[in-house]
Amino acid sequence: MAGGSGERFWPMSRHATPKHMLPIVGRGAMITQTVERLKGLIPPERVLILTQKYQIKRLRELCPQLPKKNFFAEPMRRDTAAAAALAGLLIEKRDPNATFVVLPSDAYIKDAAAYRKTLKIALEAASKNDLIVTVGMKPTRPATNYGYLKTGKPTKGLNGVLNVERFVEKPDLSTAKKYLKQGGYYWNGGVFAWSVPTLKAAFKKHCPALSKPFSRLAQAKNFEAELQKVFPKLDRISVDYAVMEKADNIAMVPATFDWDDVGEWTSTARHHAKDENGNTLCAQAVLEASKNNIVYSGNKKHLIALCGVKNLIVVHTPDATLVCDKAHAGHLKELLKKVPETYR
Amino acid sequence: MAGGSGERFWPMSRHATPKHMLPIVGRGAMITQTVERLKGLIPPERVLILTQKYQIKRLRELCPQLPKKNFFAEPMRRDTAAAAALAGLLIEKRDPNATFVVLPSDAYIKDAAAYRKTLKIALEAASKNDLIVTVGMKPTRPATNYGYLKTGKPTKGLNGVLNVERFVEKPDLSTAKKYLKQGGYYWNGGVFAWSVPTLKAAFKKHCPALSKPFSRLAQAKNFEAELQKVFPKLDRISVDYAVMEKADNIAMVPATFDWDDVGEWTSTARHHAKDENGNTLCAQAVLEASKNNIVYSGNKKHLIALCGVKNLIVVHTPDATLVCDKAHAGHLKELLKKVPETYR
Repeated sequence: MAGGSGERFWPMSRHATPKHMLPIVGRGAMITQTVERLKGLIPPERVLILTQKYQIKRLRELCPQLPKKNFFAEPMRRDTAAAAALAGLLIEKRDPNATFVVLPSDAYIKDAAAYRKTLKIALEAASKNDLIVTVGMKPTRPATNYGYLKTGKPTKGLNGVLNVERFVEKPDLSTAKKYLKQGGYYWNGGVFAWSVPTLKAAFKKHCPALSKPFSRLAQAKNFEAELQKVFPKLDRISVDYAVMEKADNIAMVPATFDWDDVGEWTSTARHHAKDENGNTLCAQAVLEASKNNIVYSGNKKHLIALCGVKNLIVVHTPDATLVCDKAHAGHLKELLKKVPETYR
Repeated sequence: MAGGSGERFWPMSRHATPKHMLPIVGRGAMITQTVERLKGLIPPERVLILTQKYQIKRLRELCPQLPKKNFFAEPMRRDTAAAAALAGLLIEKRDPNATFVVLPSDAYIKDAAAYRKTLKIALEAASKNDLIVTVGMKPTRPATNYGYLKTGKPTKGLNGVLNVERFVEKPDLSTAKKYLKQGGYYWNGGVFAWSVPTLKAAFKKHCPALSKPFSRLAQAKNFEAELQKVFPKLDRISVDYAVMEKADNIAMVPATFDWDDVGEWTSTARHHAKDENGNTLCAQAVLEASKNNIVYSGNKKHLIALCGVKNLIVVHTPDATLVCDKAHAGHLKELLKKVPETYR
């Protein structure tokens, strides 16, 4: 799933170059890292990228190992439930009994070997059972910006797989702290392995509003024309809300790798060395009496000088500069409403 | 006097383009505004610019109405006492009894007519009397970054001129407040009118360390060679310290114009309209939950976006960006020590 709109890392990310196209953390664009991480587990001809039309050209450049036809454009953004259903339909056309895993394109994961091992367990479990197998990320802090998975007993007959008792919405801080203390809770990282029949059954049972149009789409004589007709009318709901929170055949493989979806500028600080004053400097920078700032520039010849400031995010790009207080990083969307279209 | 080093308005000002070459406030470079303000009082052929060698080319472009020979380069910076003495010597060569006025190149003054009227009174008083006639700026706030002039009785026989009882160093805030309450105190704006003989006598009496080398220089067969030899050894002292604080023949004309030396970034806010949240925006800017900031860019196509910040100075230039807390504006010199030479 690579269809982001490029708001959270503005001004570095833009409408035309969202986060997954940028080297926010790690080496290379996030999508490139994600595709390369699958090497040895899933052959390139079986990696499909679901995105927006205007992003395809650049994504093909960033993932040159994938066949051109594996980049597929949704007619427009309709959230993750529609994206997952569409992915299922595209895969069904290749193999009606295929098992596949839905992956976000822009998470940061260092241990690729452990990642592949975990996905392999999930895919094998999903291929032989009527299960939706998620991957649970081990929580390292009481995060309030992720949903949590409450695990139960080990799934009978499946080594390394746990039953999921329930999906829980993003908690408040005290609830998140409680989850960490209790144990058995994992972050929902948006990774789901399932077979095509399991996906279809889940949507049919829990989300007929999407299941019905996709059934029509599956039988359409002119797929592309029907897609353009059907898609704009689809509900904008997440796969979590549409299916996961309702289904009772959910299992989970605990991740053995570190995971971070790097959801906003403040998250980047976790992945870079800090200077002696807690500053994260991904730019040519000089600082005087300044603490705990995050400084980014794509142009290492541009000097960013901070004097007497703290807890700021400073991002320089050729045509726009952001100066944002860390505590107000959540207001970036409000700010963007005021930013002229040409800078977005 | 146009020899600034371009530190206080970095990164807009640089070594090669100090503040007086920039349109910090008002229209056109500060030096251009200063020279144009003299129109009608002093003919262009009598306006001399004392500067540094590397600045002459640009200054000639900024003041095209002045003859090329009126731009004179000091061999290096030696503070204002040496500059005033050198100016006196250069003017003495044209006319040993000339009266002239020393002016900073970069103050912001709106009422040019009142300015010329005040200077005319000072020049006429200085031309007919053995007086050093300063111009006193009416204090509008208890500033601690200016020296003050304590005035006494009106100078006998000179209309609009007051005796100066003493020059006082930059006061602390409570002293400055006391001065404003008492009245009779004026800001020292670095404007001095005197005749060449009065200047020479003042330096001879109060500052022999400068008077002696300048006497030798006046008699030198090869002026330029002697200047290069003499100048490096001169004391680095201000004209205030060298002469004004000691002399007893000082008079003052109270300015009838508004005056601001615009000494640092925070001063600029006094001369621009603010938005409803107290922000001074000299750039294309968008703001969310941000108050009392000063934003500058020479490139109106570059967007500066502020989110949740207050009391910042944000200055964008093509190769460097400054983000400085207003309360730390005084630390800019410390910051600049860390800035690589190529950005200075």
